[in-house]
Amino acid sequence: MQIAILVYDHMTALDAVGPYEVLSRVPGAETIVVGAQRGPVRCDTGSLAVVADAALEDVTCPDVVVVPGWSGSTQDAALRPGPIQTWLSAVDEHTTWTASVGAGALVLASAGVLAGRRATTHWLALDRLAELGVVTAEASVVFDGKYVSAAGVAAGIDLGLALAARLADEQTAKAIQLLLAYDPHPPFDCGSVDGAPADIVSSMRAVRDFIVDGAPAA
Amino acid sequence: MQIAILVYDHMTALDAVGPYEVLSRVPGAETIVVGAQRGPVRCDTGSLAVVADAALEDVTCPDVVVVPGWSGSTQDAALRPGPIQTWLSAVDEHTTWTASVGAGALVLASAGVLAGRRATTHWLALDRLAELGVVTAEASVVFDGKYVSAAGVAAGIDLGLALAARLADEQTAKAIQLLLAYDPHPPFDCGSVDGAPADIVSSMRAVRDFIVDGAPAA
Repeated sequence: MQIAILVYDHMTALDAVGPYEVLSRVPGAETIVVGAQRGPVRCDTGSLAVVADAALEDVTCPDVVVVPGWSGSTQDAALRPGPIQTWLSAVDEHTTWTASVGAGALVLASAGVLAGRRATTHWLALDRLAELGVVTAEASVVFDGKYVSAAGVAAGIDLGLALAARLADEQTAKAIQLLLAYDPHPPFDCGSVDGAPADIVSSMRAVRDFIVDGAPAA
Repeated sequence: MQIAILVYDHMTALDAVGPYEVLSRVPGAETIVVGAQRGPVRCDTGSLAVVADAALEDVTCPDVVVVPGWSGSTQDAALRPGPIQTWLSAVDEHTTWTASVGAGALVLASAGVLAGRRATTHWLALDRLAELGVVTAEASVVFDGKYVSAAGVAAGIDLGLALAARLADEQTAKAIQLLLAYDPHPPFDCGSVDGAPADIVSSMRAVRDFIVDGAPAA
């Protein structure tokens, strides 16, 4: 079983590393980090680079593909037709599971993969995802057939565990959760629009252009 | 304000990337990924490499240092006296905050930094941390003066947010939490010893040697 984690410049590191940390511990899984070219890609906040060990052409039939999101604009390469979109469209023909975290759903949708499917994305990107022909759902992790999407950055960990239970079994997923000691205690009740103070939500909406209209990142 | 994220071979990726994702968004903070040498380090499960942009000697006075944990044995370089321990001991003299995630507390303790301090670590490593002269505490995030430690892999996100509230202010930390849509919904109640099924806990204890006695990683 091969699990391909896609990486690309300006991606959000935790979107990829959350699922990676879980899925790379599934027994029998070979996890591979794949990018447009082999070599480092630099993440959105600029101070972290991760290495693509494989180029797109090296990975032709992954069983699972995981697509992280990014911070940037809709002018970014992440949403333009290009090698990543071509690759996603091709490998999706063969996958058992196709997964996205945060704005990664926009990347999948831009590759035509999610048309008519139910999926979630970062709360600031839900309307953009709908414009791309996806039936949006506001939940932490959303399954629709073989497609699974996580809403937030850290929800990629939740997605990883939900997927691990299906790739292996529930006992294995629970063991991985305990091994990672994943017992979250967010210090604030501020991880969703429902819980967050209104002034923070409105200031975020004011900079939502960081995802949808090409303004500078927040 | 300079925030140094230490990276090293066999580290647990999420231990570093969780706090990174939060702290790199603190206004005015320069985050730098530092390793024994510049260049890639390969994480514990083997399929992900992250890049150290700076070598230890390039970073002499960080305001904050974050030390991730690793999977391996107590024979690993992570716990042997060496350049990393020398560096940690030196930079700790100048930090405003010195932080660890998971087994990263063992790395700090092996550098003599946490002697007599209260700290937490991965649940399988608590007794080893006590042997290193640390007063162990079983909580998600533990503060003792300028020292802050997170118990689990994903608790590094909680640590990052708690630290962001102190480096900036609570409003900023809340905004980062909402930007990351950090609203965790673990699919299982299995992230701590208290919630996990007894058979999983006992099998984990059986392989606890992955941290403390030099047996192969789980």
